[in-house]
Amino acid sequence: MTIFIDMDEVIADTYGMHLELYNKEFNANLTLEECSGSEIYDMVPENCLPNVRKHVWTDGFFRGLKPLKDSQEVVKQLFDKHDVYIASAAMQFPNSLLEKSEWLDEHFPFITWERRILCGHKHVLKGDVLIDDRSFNLEPFEGRSIMFSSPHNHNVNKFERVNSWKEVADLLL
Amino acid sequence: MTIFIDMDEVIADTYGMHLELYNKEFNANLTLEECSGSEIYDMVPENCLPNVRKHVWTDGFFRGLKPLKDSQEVVKQLFDKHDVYIASAAMQFPNSLLEKSEWLDEHFPFITWERRILCGHKHVLKGDVLIDDRSFNLEPFEGRSIMFSSPHNHNVNKFERVNSWKEVADLLL
Repeated sequence: MTIFIDMDEVIADTYGMHLELYNKEFNANLTLEECSGSEIYDMVPENCLPNVRKHVWTDGFFRGLKPLKDSQEVVKQLFDKHDVYIASAAMQFPNSLLEKSEWLDEHFPFITWERRILCGHKHVLKGDVLIDDRSFNLEPFEGRSIMFSSPHNHNVNKFERVNSWKEVADLLL
Repeated sequence: MTIFIDMDEVIADTYGMHLELYNKEFNANLTLEECSGSEIYDMVPENCLPNVRKHVWTDGFFRGLKPLKDSQEVVKQLFDKHDVYIASAAMQFPNSLLEKSEWLDEHFPFITWERRILCGHKHVLKGDVLIDDRSFNLEPFEGRSIMFSSPHNHNVNKFERVNSWKEVADLLL
C-alpha cells in the first residue's frame, strides 16, 4: 500500500509556530482552540497581518517546526509496513526546500531522499492513501483521502477525518 | 494529456557542465562524442574521479547549467497544449533544491510552482508521458516512456527514443 503524508499541519506543527511567533511579536495570547475553523490569517488583527504573512518567508521558520504529537512513532510504524512517502506542496516557498529536507533528516531520518516529494499540485500522485490537511489536495486524489485535523479545517465535513496520529495508527496499522 | 519532463540531461545540460569543469580543472579535452555510452564517472582517469564526483555537490553547479538546445521553445509549446510538469529526482542533492527552483524561474518561468516536482522515486507519478534520460525512471512508469538521448544512455534500446527537442516536437505537438 502506498501512503502519501503531507508535512505542514500533518507531521509538522506549522499552526503552532504561527501562534508562538504572533503571540511573542504582539504580546498576545491567542490559542489553538480559539482558532478552530479559521486560518491564522483570519484570526489576527489587520495591523498584524503583514508580519504574520511574513512568517513562512522567514529563514528558519520551517526548519524550527516541532513534529506533531506521536507523528514520528506512527509514521515509522507505517513505514515498516507500507510504502510511505512524504509529499509537501513546498514549491510555493522555495526558501523552505532545503529546510524541509534538513527537517526530515533530523526528525524522520528513516524517510530517505527516495521517499520525499516536494511538489505543487498533488493530483499527479498515484497511490492508495493521502493524509493531508487541505481539501484542495484531498479532493482530486484518486485513492483514500484522509483529512488530518488542523484548526483551519475543523468545519470541513467532506472527508474521512483523523484527529491525531493515534487515530491514524488505529486506522492503518 | 499529462507530461512529466525530467531536468538533468533533458532540459538542463548536466553532462556538458561536467565536461566543461573537468576539462578546465585538468586541462583536458574530453568531448561529448567520446563519452557516448558512458557515465562521466567512467570516462575520467581514476585520480580525477574525486574532483568530478564533487561537481554536483558544489554550490552553483545546478544553477549554472545551460538549457539544452530548443528545450525552452518546445516545452513552452507543449505547455500551451498539455498539462506539463517538470519532475526531477533532486531530493538526492538537497543543495540543488533552491538552485533548481531558481533555474526554472529564469529559464522556464511559465512552469510555475504548481507544476514543479522535486522528488526521489518517480514511480509514484500518474500521467501519460514521461520524458527522462534514466532507465530506472522510465521503466516503472505506467504511461508512455520516452528516453531523451544523453551520452550515458546511448546503448539502451528498451524505450522509444528522442535525440533532440525538435524530435519531441514532431512526436507530441
